[in-house]
Amino acid sequence: MTEFEYIHWLRGKTPSDPRVPVGPGDDCAVVAGASGEPWLVTTDMLLDGVHFVLEQTEPRRIGRKAMAVNLSDIAAMAGRPVAAVVSVGLPRQAPANLAEELFLGLREKADEFQTAIVGGDTNSWDGRLTLSVTLLGQTGPAGAILRSGAKAGDWLLVTGPLGGSILGKHLDFTPRVREGLLLSQMATLHAMIDISDGLAADANHLAEESGCGIVLKADAVPIAPAAYQLQDGQTPLEHALSDGEDFELLFALPPEHAQRLLELQPLAETTLTCVGECIEEKGLFLQEGQTRRALPALGFVHALGR
Amino acid sequence: MTEFEYIHWLRGKTPSDPRVPVGPGDDCAVVAGASGEPWLVTTDMLLDGVHFVLEQTEPRRIGRKAMAVNLSDIAAMAGRPVAAVVSVGLPRQAPANLAEELFLGLREKADEFQTAIVGGDTNSWDGRLTLSVTLLGQTGPAGAILRSGAKAGDWLLVTGPLGGSILGKHLDFTPRVREGLLLSQMATLHAMIDISDGLAADANHLAEESGCGIVLKADAVPIAPAAYQLQDGQTPLEHALSDGEDFELLFALPPEHAQRLLELQPLAETTLTCVGECIEEKGLFLQEGQTRRALPALGFVHALGR
Repeated sequence: MTEFEYIHWLRGKTPSDPRVPVGPGDDCAVVAGASGEPWLVTTDMLLDGVHFVLEQTEPRRIGRKAMAVNLSDIAAMAGRPVAAVVSVGLPRQAPANLAEELFLGLREKADEFQTAIVGGDTNSWDGRLTLSVTLLGQTGPAGAILRSGAKAGDWLLVTGPLGGSILGKHLDFTPRVREGLLLSQMATLHAMIDISDGLAADANHLAEESGCGIVLKADAVPIAPAAYQLQDGQTPLEHALSDGEDFELLFALPPEHAQRLLELQPLAETTLTCVGECIEEKGLFLQEGQTRRALPALGFVHALGR
Repeated sequence: MTEFEYIHWLRGKTPSDPRVPVGPGDDCAVVAGASGEPWLVTTDMLLDGVHFVLEQTEPRRIGRKAMAVNLSDIAAMAGRPVAAVVSVGLPRQAPANLAEELFLGLREKADEFQTAIVGGDTNSWDGRLTLSVTLLGQTGPAGAILRSGAKAGDWLLVTGPLGGSILGKHLDFTPRVREGLLLSQMATLHAMIDISDGLAADANHLAEESGCGIVLKADAVPIAPAAYQLQDGQTPLEHALSDGEDFELLFALPPEHAQRLLELQPLAETTLTCVGECIEEKGLFLQEGQTRRALPALGFVHALGR
């Protein structure tokens, strides 16, 4: 069973609940209390050897990443982060100050996005470093932007170049919180997701949730310099399509809104690029010149159990 | 640095924030959105070898415990649980169905307390089993009951017998959610905490947060049968005072309210017992017959780093 099969199985076992307008399967869940005010909730766990290598990484960067990956999920809903809780399992033989340095990294990223750290659970164990952050946020003026609203004809835009994040960006990226909020106020976003599994895999999530297909245009995908530096037999385009942890936003919107954003280029820190469009025919495709072929939804997938 | 020194350090680094009426250091934090509606937030991580032993425990019980320890924190605020997110790190060599069995255990406990599981993050790694649950709840009719409101003269009551939870209760307890809500409606609770670190340690937390002292009465502490079964040189009373993970509620209230609850015994599943009282003199004490002596705040404390 893979991560996605497991999520599918989980969703099948999750009854609908009036307090949960959006349940498992999107970047955040949406929970509403007695007042009806919606809250975004997301959680991400970082594990030594999977999301970072403790021996090779300053703990403060690990702390920053743990907060930033959650901020990116709030960004993907066009939300505002409010408060975080953090649980940590520290190796018993951890270097002095590991706990403090992790926290200072968490706080740096949290402060950058006006997020309070309101609680946590700190343990030591005979195991490797594990930390889990849960982030609460509020919806922006446009409400929660889901993965499921894309329509055939929509254009697909991305907030920055992709690929090669393993060379450093996966630890030191800026979550696109400000960008998600701004874009959702400047245009009608039909669907949005952050690119954590890879462009192809996340475009595929968006297509599946929206019940449409997606064509990515090979010559339009913005490729990060880091994707050219990797010398491992994959082309830079393959890296841009399949590398995980870029944490850029991928969003679908009507062509006229997309054109306006592409002309205005309203984001201070990055450039918007159109990478494809949504189509009626279900599936994920890559357009190379005149040729359109099915594209496997490559990306990082956790295998769970045997 | 111990867990508590670390929490103290964290609290010193946490600025006050109007969106966070109650920050780190209580059983839950309280977060308020634009509408002012308060939410309780708590997180607890369970680690193989610390909170359970995977090789000796059915995964479903581990799932139940992971949800129940968080429910107990909501109970300690006299709150109502609403929604949970779960992050898991599964050992790559995990037995088949570990993920499913954990989830079914989580769901059993969540269902028992009308709690939706709204999202999560599932990973596999070359490490031991780790799972972290974050629970959101709403405050009950009496508002959030904190650790910090106890006053000299208050009596201290506990919801059940203590000690020896390692023999099984630590995995299979019933979080006192219904009891916390009912008690907070029947009496004016000045302060409440769940007993996770041990009666002495948690009474000490309550005293420190409230700025008072506490006297526990040796002959009044209700001792669980399991505390008599442990043959390890500690007396049953010592187990009841220092064993962690009983997850009963300990609360402080005016004597006349306490007397009424003790007479009525309103809880269907357990018996209320008065175990001591709050005093002006700071510190934690044990009264044995005519003798009052200082009691070390024994209990399980995580040592963090070297």
